[in-house]
Amino acid sequence: MTDPGGQPGLRRRDLLAGMGAAAASTIAAGAGALPASRVSSWDIYADVLVAGSGAAGTCAAIEASRAGANVLLIESLPRFGGSSAMSAGVVYAGGGTALQRALGVEDSVENMFNFISAAGGKHPPLDKIQLYCEQSSAHFDWLVEQGVPYSQQMSPGMIVPQAGESLYFSGCEQAWPARELAVPAPRGHVPVATGMTGGRVLMEALLAQATALGVRLQAEVSGQRLIVTGEGRVIGMQVSMAGETRTIRAYRGVVLASGGFIHNRDMVRNYAPELYDCSVPWGNVGDQGMGINMGIGVGAAALRMHQGFAIVPLYPPQSVLSGIVVNASAQRFVAEDTYYGVLGDAIAFHQQGRAWLITDRRADPPALQDNFLQVAQANTIGDLADQLGFPKGALQDTVAYYNRHAANGDDPLFHKRPPELRPLQGPPYRAWDLAVDKAFCPAHTFGGLQTGVNGEVFNSFGEVIPGLYAAGRTSSGLPGAPYIASGLSVGDATFFGRRAGVAAAQRGGAA
Amino acid sequence: MTDPGGQPGLRRRDLLAGMGAAAASTIAAGAGALPASRVSSWDIYADVLVAGSGAAGTCAAIEASRAGANVLLIESLPRFGGSSAMSAGVVYAGGGTALQRALGVEDSVENMFNFISAAGGKHPPLDKIQLYCEQSSAHFDWLVEQGVPYSQQMSPGMIVPQAGESLYFSGCEQAWPARELAVPAPRGHVPVATGMTGGRVLMEALLAQATALGVRLQAEVSGQRLIVTGEGRVIGMQVSMAGETRTIRAYRGVVLASGGFIHNRDMVRNYAPELYDCSVPWGNVGDQGMGINMGIGVGAAALRMHQGFAIVPLYPPQSVLSGIVVNASAQRFVAEDTYYGVLGDAIAFHQQGRAWLITDRRADPPALQDNFLQVAQANTIGDLADQLGFPKGALQDTVAYYNRHAANGDDPLFHKRPPELRPLQGPPYRAWDLAVDKAFCPAHTFGGLQTGVNGEVFNSFGEVIPGLYAAGRTSSGLPGAPYIASGLSVGDATFFGRRAGVAAAQRGGAA
Repeated sequence: MTDPGGQPGLRRRDLLAGMGAAAASTIAAGAGALPASRVSSWDIYADVLVAGSGAAGTCAAIEASRAGANVLLIESLPRFGGSSAMSAGVVYAGGGTALQRALGVEDSVENMFNFISAAGGKHPPLDKIQLYCEQSSAHFDWLVEQGVPYSQQMSPGMIVPQAGESLYFSGCEQAWPARELAVPAPRGHVPVATGMTGGRVLMEALLAQATALGVRLQAEVSGQRLIVTGEGRVIGMQVSMAGETRTIRAYRGVVLASGGFIHNRDMVRNYAPELYDCSVPWGNVGDQGMGINMGIGVGAAALRMHQGFAIVPLYPPQSVLSGIVVNASAQRFVAEDTYYGVLGDAIAFHQQGRAWLITDRRADPPALQDNFLQVAQANTIGDLADQLGFPKGALQDTVAYYNRHAANGDDPLFHKRPPELRPLQGPPYRAWDLAVDKAFCPAHTFGGLQTGVNGEVFNSFGEVIPGLYAAGRTSSGLPGAPYIASGLSVGDATFFGRRAGVAAAQRGGAA
Repeated sequence: MTDPGGQPGLRRRDLLAGMGAAAASTIAAGAGALPASRVSSWDIYADVLVAGSGAAGTCAAIEASRAGANVLLIESLPRFGGSSAMSAGVVYAGGGTALQRALGVEDSVENMFNFISAAGGKHPPLDKIQLYCEQSSAHFDWLVEQGVPYSQQMSPGMIVPQAGESLYFSGCEQAWPARELAVPAPRGHVPVATGMTGGRVLMEALLAQATALGVRLQAEVSGQRLIVTGEGRVIGMQVSMAGETRTIRAYRGVVLASGGFIHNRDMVRNYAPELYDCSVPWGNVGDQGMGINMGIGVGAAALRMHQGFAIVPLYPPQSVLSGIVVNASAQRFVAEDTYYGVLGDAIAFHQQGRAWLITDRRADPPALQDNFLQVAQANTIGDLADQLGFPKGALQDTVAYYNRHAANGDDPLFHKRPPELRPLQGPPYRAWDLAVDKAFCPAHTFGGLQTGVNGEVFNSFGEVIPGLYAAGRTSSGLPGAPYIASGLSVGDATFFGRRAGVAAAQRGGAA
């Protein structure tokens, strides 16, 4: 992505104009932050400095600017948009958004809250979920106001719409057990786009809006350390730009929105060992954890650093889901027709990264061969199990149980839905390797700085760090493990990014 | 536990002697550390300050003292010994310790390394495991030299010996799949003690040794913030004692060894949501995470904060293991005869905290009633399953498969060993609730500060924080999830505590 709207943002020569030969501000080895007392001069000034140009950072910049702040948004890479621009741009919204209502979709705040709070992992952040749900409809209106285009069409499928539709079931709402926890409603709001380019469409609109508001956008500026006063207030950042070390003074606040850390392999191995084995680090290469690490450097707490998504995309086509997914004991362990983020989580985190899809003669090998290796083929389930080295007789029992009930339209274990619920029929039976290190398994991190609902960052003593804010995957937010719906991450980033921007501009913090 | 050996340690009046009316050193809200520039006077001096009087801290104090340092060891509670004194005092040691050799036990460093590195979770800290195994035999000799008493007797059981034996299989070495990864050897080294009091015996010896070496032991001193120079060196700690705020200057280094955080419920919910539901926070009440939080306050990275043990103690008696453990799908998912730390991990982390033990007419209800609620009883497996609300027919299939193979001495799924491997026979069939929030399920945290093999603490940029060391459960060490053997935690604490003490006394760090 290039600068939006043909506006070049601030040029480097503007930024560097007037800089003297700044005495290098050196950081002592082992110091996680740069003391303000060691900064001999400031090179660049802003009211609010935002690090990272993805959805969180750009929304923060927009709102900080609207709140009257002079905003500088820096991006470590040559292009703006972050991982958000690589995504499908889905925003999880509900409770009766304008689009839901226009399409006759029934939803309520309570229903949305019940889904997000109950369908995922244990002890999610209820304060953030509550606020997110209550204001979801208004947040969608805001996105429309920023120029993000949506169509009044709904897709019936379980994947990102490919033909310009803007609403679909983006998560596991209809799968068991989620559908018993809350009435399912489609909440994946997707910009009008072709294929998977919705993230680019979303970010083009948001970046154009930021530019129009006068936000200075500067690419190829990498954060190094936060600058902190003796009283613990964050007042700026030391950065690297064009090979030089520079200091940026932020009069009102710094917003860290520089993504997660899936491309920092040491961090992934140390913090999130289960994600380390997943075959495809899924994110912009800027996801190096620098925002998180700068925050930790000034004493911020970082929560749930082991969490993330690990996606095993069985579908499309949906017919693939008529197969069964089994673990190393040849047992089924998940509804095959759930959201593939839930399936991937079950494999990566709870089955030691290993699982297999078993298909019958009605399978569509070409559709599967894109993502998975066929590791066995046989004319009987027993022979297939032998080839896989499964415990003797176990897969036969599993298939017999599944078939017996599926013939009656029943799936007592995981309540898979028709038409994918049907007995496995004749050969050839095939097994496809779903191991996270062998299959196509995109992974991304969710752990990040502990923040309040206004993006304020907490230290390990539960106190707000003055002047510091974080949003998106640099913070620990709505997305957890399992990841229950596409759009929760970009939704969280846009929603809480906005709030962080307002709070930074107002030097606000905990309510 | 009182002061060992009748020596009172340093009395408060000695500590406070000569203190003027120290100008209060105030910490600005949000600042995770106290800048040295704001310390107007020092109240107490030491070369090495150790926070926490459990195994890690006491071993650090002993070695720092032997290395020539003047050592002050502070403890937040009125008694010394920490969680180590509450434990059974098991140290996991092997590779041919003097005790193993005396008892004719074959073991090797390689074998021990293979077990620890392969039987637990993904991507364990191989550098620490390697060093720990290589020096394990020497470390056991060191414990003996400190006066920790061991007998030359081995216990055949799977639980902490109750009759003074000092060696036993303390982990899952003999259970599947661990026994295929390394040749099993008993490595649980237990001080001679009655019942579960080995930890007290261990700590009495270590604390007496520390006292004899001149370590000043001071109870009821609580750490508040580390004191750090503008260059990022840790040079002391602000503490609370007798209701007053005091500053301690540590000329060579500070060792944080104040345990984990299982009793800080907010921290547990935020960092380790799966452990939050476990019924019994298992540790000394001083396990408030203060050492971890003080470390984070100066920019330290904290790793694997979600990990910990969650123990579901099915045995003794071992005969209970002839039952089968099933999940909410009525499937077996673990070898019932594995170490109960492995069983508990499987339930708490991978079965959403829920599981049931199914027993037959040969069960011993009184033995189970101590720890578990009987939630169903029936004359047929089908009736039992109905009472439990299990998926129809699933438990029947599970039992049929298990019985069919157990009758042949086989357990294809999890390779349970005889004599506990035997078919379920006649009624009454009973189900016992193993849910972590309903059963007796002690839990403890393993996440902590990122350290090197010398206890040096790393910041989020991978640099050593000068002057700061950590050990035991304040650091992230050998114990992970699953917890594969009793003695790994106290073993890690004693071994790396010693190294941290030496390094602090020498102002050493990364090799």
